[in-house]
Amino acid sequence: MSKAVSIKIRFYNYDVVAIGPGKADLLEAVQQYGSISAAGRAMGMSYKRAWDLVNAMNSSFNKPLVETIKGGAHGGGAVVTTFGQSVLGLYRQIEQKSAKSVEHDLAAISKLLKP
Amino acid sequence: MSKAVSIKIRFYNYDVVAIGPGKADLLEAVQQYGSISAAGRAMGMSYKRAWDLVNAMNSSFNKPLVETIKGGAHGGGAVVTTFGQSVLGLYRQIEQKSAKSVEHDLAAISKLLKP
Repeated sequence: MSKAVSIKIRFYNYDVVAIGPGKADLLEAVQQYGSISAAGRAMGMSYKRAWDLVNAMNSSFNKPLVETIKGGAHGGGAVVTTFGQSVLGLYRQIEQKSAKSVEHDLAAISKLLKP
Repeated sequence: MSKAVSIKIRFYNYDVVAIGPGKADLLEAVQQYGSISAAGRAMGMSYKRAWDLVNAMNSSFNKPLVETIKGGAHGGGAVVTTFGQSVLGLYRQIEQKSAKSVEHDLAAISKLLKP
């Protein structure tokens, strides 16, 4: 497809984005790198920004999605909790289901966009 | 529902949001007020911001969604074109269809959010 058309879904808890594309990607990066700052760096965001997003997620949900580990050889790290993995999985499912439900309409909008 | 959970869908043409919640609401406001600046004012945005959003829409799609009318008693105004009305209708349809497809999952996410 020569046109980059996509759907982005964000779940709000009042004014705060509880989970959205950026936070979901950040969760995956934390899983991959085992560190919030390394995950943020890999996504081109500042240490502060990455922490703000993690804190926003953690305070939106019933339980933390990311937990930090103190100490250790590299001064601690971070893990995505089992709860966080469930939320992430649910979000990715919703993204896919929603995208599938509007496939035809995506094509319709796409045709109306400039090439 | 005591929790404000919602889905927001944005259609991107490359890096530009071609149509999303803010632009759709602005189109409706232009239809209502017959003026880009009055529509922006009603939505609490600056004259410049409202025009930037209209220009972004108009340059993302094959044809203009909003056209300005020169002259007249109040120094001109703006109308949503038939094409713009079609895009708006299609967008609202997609929003509804998508929301319906993930109703159950919305409830599932909602339960995981803080009260």
